[in-house]
Amino acid sequence: MERQWTEPEQMLLRMAAKYTDAELAPYDLEMAHTNRYPDGLVEKLIQTGFLTVMLPTEYGGAGFGPEVTAAMIERIAKGSASVAATLEGHYKSVDAILKYGTDALKKALLPQATHRIFAFGMTESTGGSNPMGIQSTAKRVAGGWLLNGNKVMITNGTLAEVYCVLVKTGEQELSVFVVDNSMPGFSFGKREDFIGLRGTPIGEIFLSDVRVDDDHLLGRVGQGGAIGDHAHDDARILMGAVLSGIMQHALSLAAKYANERTALGTPIGQMQAIQRKLADIKINQETTQLLWERAAYAKAQGQPYSELAAMAKAHGSRAAVAACDDALQVYAGYGYSNDYPLAHLMLDARALEIAEGTVEKMRTAIAQAELKKEEA
Amino acid sequence: MERQWTEPEQMLLRMAAKYTDAELAPYDLEMAHTNRYPDGLVEKLIQTGFLTVMLPTEYGGAGFGPEVTAAMIERIAKGSASVAATLEGHYKSVDAILKYGTDALKKALLPQATHRIFAFGMTESTGGSNPMGIQSTAKRVAGGWLLNGNKVMITNGTLAEVYCVLVKTGEQELSVFVVDNSMPGFSFGKREDFIGLRGTPIGEIFLSDVRVDDDHLLGRVGQGGAIGDHAHDDARILMGAVLSGIMQHALSLAAKYANERTALGTPIGQMQAIQRKLADIKINQETTQLLWERAAYAKAQGQPYSELAAMAKAHGSRAAVAACDDALQVYAGYGYSNDYPLAHLMLDARALEIAEGTVEKMRTAIAQAELKKEEA
Amino acid sequence: MERQWTEPEQMLLRMAAKYTDAELAPYDLEMAHTNRYPDGLVEKLIQTGFLTVMLPTEYGGAGFGPEVTAAMIERIAKGSASVAATLEGHYKSVDAILKYGTDALKKALLPQATHRIFAFGMTESTGGSNPMGIQSTAKRVAGGWLLNGNKVMITNGTLAEVYCVLVKTGEQELSVFVVDNSMPGFSFGKREDFIGLRGTPIGEIFLSDVRVDDDHLLGRVGQGGAIGDHAHDDARILMGAVLSGIMQHALSLAAKYANERTALGTPIGQMQAIQRKLADIKINQETTQLLWERAAYAKAQGQPYSELAAMAKAHGSRAAVAACDDALQVYAGYGYSNDYPLAHLMLDARALEIAEGTVEKMRTAIAQAELKKEEA
Amino acid sequence: MERQWTEPEQMLLRMAAKYTDAELAPYDLEMAHTNRYPDGLVEKLIQTGFLTVMLPTEYGGAGFGPEVTAAMIERIAKGSASVAATLEGHYKSVDAILKYGTDALKKALLPQATHRIFAFGMTESTGGSNPMGIQSTAKRVAGGWLLNGNKVMITNGTLAEVYCVLVKTGEQELSVFVVDNSMPGFSFGKREDFIGLRGTPIGEIFLSDVRVDDDHLLGRVGQGGAIGDHAHDDARILMGAVLSGIMQHALSLAAKYANERTALGTPIGQMQAIQRKLADIKINQETTQLLWERAAYAKAQGQPYSELAAMAKAHGSRAAVAACDDALQVYAGYGYSNDYPLAHLMLDARALEIAEGTVEKMRTAIAQAELKKEEA
Repeated sequence: MERQWTEPEQMLLRMAAKYTDAELAPYDLEMAHTNRYPDGLVEKLIQTGFLTVMLPTEYGGAGFGPEVTAAMIERIAKGSASVAATLEGHYKSVDAILKYGTDALKKALLPQATHRIFAFGMTESTGGSNPMGIQSTAKRVAGGWLLNGNKVMITNGTLAEVYCVLVKTGEQELSVFVVDNSMPGFSFGKREDFIGLRGTPIGEIFLSDVRVDDDHLLGRVGQGGAIGDHAHDDARILMGAVLSGIMQHALSLAAKYANERTALGTPIGQMQAIQRKLADIKINQETTQLLWERAAYAKAQGQPYSELAAMAKAHGSRAAVAACDDALQVYAGYGYSNDYPLAHLMLDARALEIAEGTVEKMRTAIAQAELKKEEA
Repeated sequence: MERQWTEPEQMLLRMAAKYTDAELAPYDLEMAHTNRYPDGLVEKLIQTGFLTVMLPTEYGGAGFGPEVTAAMIERIAKGSASVAATLEGHYKSVDAILKYGTDALKKALLPQATHRIFAFGMTESTGGSNPMGIQSTAKRVAGGWLLNGNKVMITNGTLAEVYCVLVKTGEQELSVFVVDNSMPGFSFGKREDFIGLRGTPIGEIFLSDVRVDDDHLLGRVGQGGAIGDHAHDDARILMGAVLSGIMQHALSLAAKYANERTALGTPIGQMQAIQRKLADIKINQETTQLLWERAAYAKAQGQPYSELAAMAKAHGSRAAVAACDDALQVYAGYGYSNDYPLAHLMLDARALEIAEGTVEKMRTAIAQAELKKEEA
Repeated sequence: MERQWTEPEQMLLRMAAKYTDAELAPYDLEMAHTNRYPDGLVEKLIQTGFLTVMLPTEYGGAGFGPEVTAAMIERIAKGSASVAATLEGHYKSVDAILKYGTDALKKALLPQATHRIFAFGMTESTGGSNPMGIQSTAKRVAGGWLLNGNKVMITNGTLAEVYCVLVKTGEQELSVFVVDNSMPGFSFGKREDFIGLRGTPIGEIFLSDVRVDDDHLLGRVGQGGAIGDHAHDDARILMGAVLSGIMQHALSLAAKYANERTALGTPIGQMQAIQRKLADIKINQETTQLLWERAAYAKAQGQPYSELAAMAKAHGSRAAVAACDDALQVYAGYGYSNDYPLAHLMLDARALEIAEGTVEKMRTAIAQAELKKEEA
Repeated sequence: MERQWTEPEQMLLRMAAKYTDAELAPYDLEMAHTNRYPDGLVEKLIQTGFLTVMLPTEYGGAGFGPEVTAAMIERIAKGSASVAATLEGHYKSVDAILKYGTDALKKALLPQATHRIFAFGMTESTGGSNPMGIQSTAKRVAGGWLLNGNKVMITNGTLAEVYCVLVKTGEQELSVFVVDNSMPGFSFGKREDFIGLRGTPIGEIFLSDVRVDDDHLLGRVGQGGAIGDHAHDDARILMGAVLSGIMQHALSLAAKYANERTALGTPIGQMQAIQRKLADIKINQETTQLLWERAAYAKAQGQPYSELAAMAKAHGSRAAVAACDDALQVYAGYGYSNDYPLAHLMLDARALEIAEGTVEKMRTAIAQAELKKEEA
């Protein structure tokens, strides 16, 4: 039950912390203001090798497991939740191909995951993330499939070059295909102007008669729903880590400020109203961290982790919004200003009550798991 | 216990509603994006006579009472909380001069309140809104006072032309003076880049050897704390109305969307998870409206209203942030987008957990009132 | 918007306050311990005339309106929520007969409401308060009806002598009849052992071939659902008043204790952690009071009041449980003891998240009202 | 990060589960009604060896570590929080003697811990659990000390035979001594009539010139505050486990009922309003379990665990009250009845917002730990 890491894992985490402090944290507020990554950030991210962390060594990756991968994401999120979200979007897509791709596809595609960013497109404008509302289609053609449709609100959308996409192969049949942005008929749509995670490109792709070979199908025809669910589960562990990292950031800022800022000569950290906020932030952070760690451990052990992942994201997102709101209030007027990062942390966290399945959907999933345990 | 208005009051409210719908609501999201009022908005606001609503007729005003004034603010806030906040800042300052100004000052100054915007500067960068942390000073000179200092986070600061300012006239002695932006030594500082109420200019003034005559003192020397408290009380009623207006806006948007948006063919408004949010928004809105109405009634009747005003703002601000957050979640991904007004409503509301006295200060004030009632 | 009462209304309220302080408050904790009213309490309640408060003068009542009736209930609840609940159960049943009874029935029955307690039986063990789950029936017989069935969790059940009962007169057809405990075939079942409102008898009746004449039908055949809804609406206003009274009691106890109890020489009321609780209790109490007052006003004016009544009970019950929990915590270890009334106040309040329609049902009702306002 | 147990640990947990299901769970509701343990329960508890679980083998104990001890407490609490609390009170007292007792004292006393119940008396009626408000004293006499005073609200008070007591040995000097109920001058006071944990005896002792030898001092003179703090830390881990067990019980009941109970033919577990409650209960339970497990792990590793223990109890107690309240609401009217265990679970949990340090004190402790980490 502790965070004990091997020597290579410790090196990874130290490296991530150093990179975050030097290359990400100083630019995070600017990203929130400009709604984009600074020039060169993505290139640096690739160079430094962060895309390869969880990629198996056989594909040129570093081959780290799910626990330390999430821990690394947490450390990065402490400096920039936007960049952490870009990695999360990449990893969950690579994970899907690892689990469901044919050997041929994996050999062809995964080595590219070291330097090209991957993404997973599920949501469509008409259907929320409800799989049955999907309108994009894949139609059988000789030796392959013809894909048409439109996916929105994709993490890394417009930045990523390789996309898993969930489409209909029949009336009630969902399947997942992999497409490349270099394929004819692939085009980018608009990038979202969201209130948080403003560094992360979140955007739209269009598929117009995009033709893919048979081996670009993940798993089996009709397995799309399950593959999407798996990708959500993987994403939710990482999102738990992102949320924990955001809260560590908020807590550190709030506690520092509460030590420094005085009211009538006394540090405001001595006031019960401030202490209550600090304690609540810490509890929210710690419980979220324990949940994603537990879910990542279960994944590493080959145990079921869907419910734990749902809890990490459902609890973590509510917890992080509340924690950042508390930290903002510690800063009072300055917390309300765009000159300080507090509000932007709250808005980053707010994404995750919606993205990768709303809190409402998580609750239903958790409840159904519990109902099942008590079935007669 | 009902909102029954005289014919002129009804006309005022209808006029405000019409003006809001035609001139404010369409530009409100733009204000959030551009961090400023559209060109001509302030001039139009003045022309239409909104500055004069609560100004007594003897000074050229419309002479409406506190209840309908707040109700009008609520209607305006339904279209633009920023503009409502500008009116609130103006009214509370005019109110302070009405209550505490000499006849000479009132005769000289109040007729200007029909076309010049007024403001009240209390906060300083070192002291929160804690009066004893104030560093600005007024020093006695022949026939008047010499004012020096710096006030920040003033509602209408940099827009307003007439300012009440809270300064020290002695070690533990606070007084309020009125200064004009045309006076030598008066200058504007920076305008805040806040996360909400982005239309409203909120900014800084500098006083450098600004000389005012004796009659620019409000009330008595040493009465500054009480005058500031009164201005806070007046502001809090109006802020309650602003918050109620914001929630009416959020509720209307959320209920409309819940009627229109479908999931698998059913309007999402039929889902319990959405219904819970709509019900909670309504309860938050209604209880806030009832509180400000009750406080405004007490003020109109000459009854004590300080505790009620504090409740209107303390409850109203927490309620409005929660309500707008719920409405955002009803919109899900679209709620998280800058293309829709939901997030900006939440951020407007968030200001009022801080401005005009933090929620924490309100709680202390309310608790002390209750403790006093039960003293042996 | 104020609580302004006529001279007779003021007398009623003073009388209620005096009676409460002398005859109810001293025995309230004992009721919680013994799960019954003290001997003679009901007789005294009748003698003093409380059953007649809202009964029109033509039937021998005092003819007070809904606003002051609820205000009186609030005052009584400040001393004993149990007794207030008994009056609420009586009044809502009398109200139903007043609105829906034939002249003959009213002339025969309502004069008895001055000295016999009335009740309304809706819930059955299989169906919650969902009307369509009802299994009790009325079958047409010559000149009347034959009633069979079982009603549970009736406020005043086993104490009351006259009962409105909701039964099926057809597959999807509900109707309300009035029965008397002296009728052949009427019998009492068990009295509930609830965790709160322990003075109030809440119990069960059985109807076994109880024959009633035609004029014992309220309204029309098939109007049962609407009559039940109306009775719920009336009850919810009064329950809002009960909850407000409970919170006044809790607030008064908590503030007194916070003045008296010291920690290291300082009254605990000076601690922010205690002040926060006091402020939250007060806000919860005031908003609940404003809601029931608003609903009672609407009822008095002949305006729709169903949504307001639902808000009074939904908000009021959540608010009161939270407020009493806060007050308990102010008392700390003593609050946790049966020797002090704090826990029992919380448990009294908790009833009303369930009774007269659960909070969940209230939310749906409120949401549907709001959705309707925004229909295209 | 998983719950992996050795074979003897698994046996212990299985044995505890079996004992709980057979000997405790069936009597738990009865304990709530009768405010006492059933005849023979304590004897059986001793016979079965539960008192010895964490006692080192050299003193005749089973020598289990802090993690499995807490896990066992959790399993017992799933059947009876009262009995779990009795064990918690015993273990924390034994732990204090283990850590701070002289070898002579340990050799003399600890073998008795296999069949005599131990307790720790800190609170006094005048001072809450604030150590400096303590009035009990120990005065130096030849070869020993003379103890006088009165301790209240002791877990196992009136049941336990050996007591650690916190007393003043000087103006600002606290020390802890061990006394035996067989010593002259020792007497029992009243047993509390609390609203929850009603099986557990919680009561009062009086010390009137009780003479103890030198070796009955724990640690050093003046170390009493630190020893009390340590005992609190140990207790809070176990209390986290108790709370987690209570929530497991509540969740199991609520999910079962939601599967069985139907509304209009559909199990209520299919309603979003019910699912939300089940999900929230699960999240509250899981986060509490993760916190106590983490704290117990830290203790086992010799790492600091005070802040983690405070979080386990502060979060766990709020979480458990909310979770049990949710479960009660799932049962609706039946949840409100003394015939079902829901309300009693909520009231058991409520103890721990107060006992072993209030939630408010925990928050201050957690905040101070965080402030310290960010000191310049």
